[in-house]
Amino acid sequence: MKMIPAPTIERLSTLYTVLKRLEDEAVSKISSKQLSEITGVSSFTIRKDIGYISQTGSETGYDISKLKSSLFDLFDLSKERKACIVGLGRLGKAIMNFSRFSAENIKIIAGFDSNINVIETTVSNIPLYPAHNISEVVKELGIKIGILTVPPEYAQISTDRLVSGGIKGIMNFTPITIKTGNDAIPVKNLHIMEEFRVLSMMMDIKEKEK
Amino acid sequence: MKMIPAPTIERLSTLYTVLKRLEDEAVSKISSKQLSEITGVSSFTIRKDIGYISQTGSETGYDISKLKSSLFDLFDLSKERKACIVGLGRLGKAIMNFSRFSAENIKIIAGFDSNINVIETTVSNIPLYPAHNISEVVKELGIKIGILTVPPEYAQISTDRLVSGGIKGIMNFTPITIKTGNDAIPVKNLHIMEEFRVLSMMMDIKEKEK
Repeated sequence: MKMIPAPTIERLSTLYTVLKRLEDEAVSKISSKQLSEITGVSSFTIRKDIGYISQTGSETGYDISKLKSSLFDLFDLSKERKACIVGLGRLGKAIMNFSRFSAENIKIIAGFDSNINVIETTVSNIPLYPAHNISEVVKELGIKIGILTVPPEYAQISTDRLVSGGIKGIMNFTPITIKTGNDAIPVKNLHIMEEFRVLSMMMDIKEKEK
Repeated sequence: MKMIPAPTIERLSTLYTVLKRLEDEAVSKISSKQLSEITGVSSFTIRKDIGYISQTGSETGYDISKLKSSLFDLFDLSKERKACIVGLGRLGKAIMNFSRFSAENIKIIAGFDSNINVIETTVSNIPLYPAHNISEVVKELGIKIGILTVPPEYAQISTDRLVSGGIKGIMNFTPITIKTGNDAIPVKNLHIMEEFRVLSMMMDIKEKEK
């Protein structure tokens, strides 16, 4: 397989969601032009992105179920991935109960919080543990993905504990740039507040253009 | 002001969060090299990004409070922005109570859901309304930002209602590519599931490199 650039991977991930929805709507074929209209990405880029994973394009367009299945393989969605949530505030709890995870084989099998009251009062099907046990629980249960939803001041120490437990990747919802101290442990950031700032600025620019 | 490229805006937004934290920790000066270590962005890019908004760099580094204040102005964070949440599931409720909003003058002043039971049983300081009233409430209260946390099948109809109420920007948490039908209404996407797919793939690549 050719090395796929990061922006292409991001777009292919969005494409997978689009194809899943089209399949649910019983659409079977789609052209790069139609995909461009749905996603806002140029049809040239769409064709190039898809070129990394298959040659299934034709004059009548892409076969949706074939393309979706190539992406399913690319993202290896048949593989079960064990995950844990660190920080059981409102956001942590919302993500813990995210129904879309199970469709993609992400299994949240543990939750952590530094506040014992939170652990004792949270109603959950998922076992909850005190934060100081992160390393041992991650190691014992073979958890691969750590989802960070702690307050900013706990972001780095929680990261350290996840890493020392042998975590393989971190989804960081805190506004902090965390360090795993190991290039082999990727971190993906979802900085919600930053995105709102950018949206506000885009709105201001549009307003001035008027 | 020079036109600032979108990736620079994204990075400056992250930089603002970093500077806020440094200021809380009573740090007063910082070099582009130190900022590079914290953010993972090259010091060349950091200097270039900051160049868009100020010339405050010197041999001893940037003055944190001055730089932060330039960014505060850039993002116009003194301006109050009225927002609403559409979709009061777990994610919607978590975001409705996001404490960081108030520090940046984003005021959530309405919540919407299509399920009357949800509206009647949700405990909230924020007034809640049925989804079919979105347009009129948005118009009446002068709401500028719509935050979409509905199930995918309601994403487009909710967008249409927000747009017809005169919304100025949308933060889209659904996996759907929504259309505002108006270039002057920016949409920012926060596709959580897509990000998990990308993280998983980064992890797989790292594993194969071993």
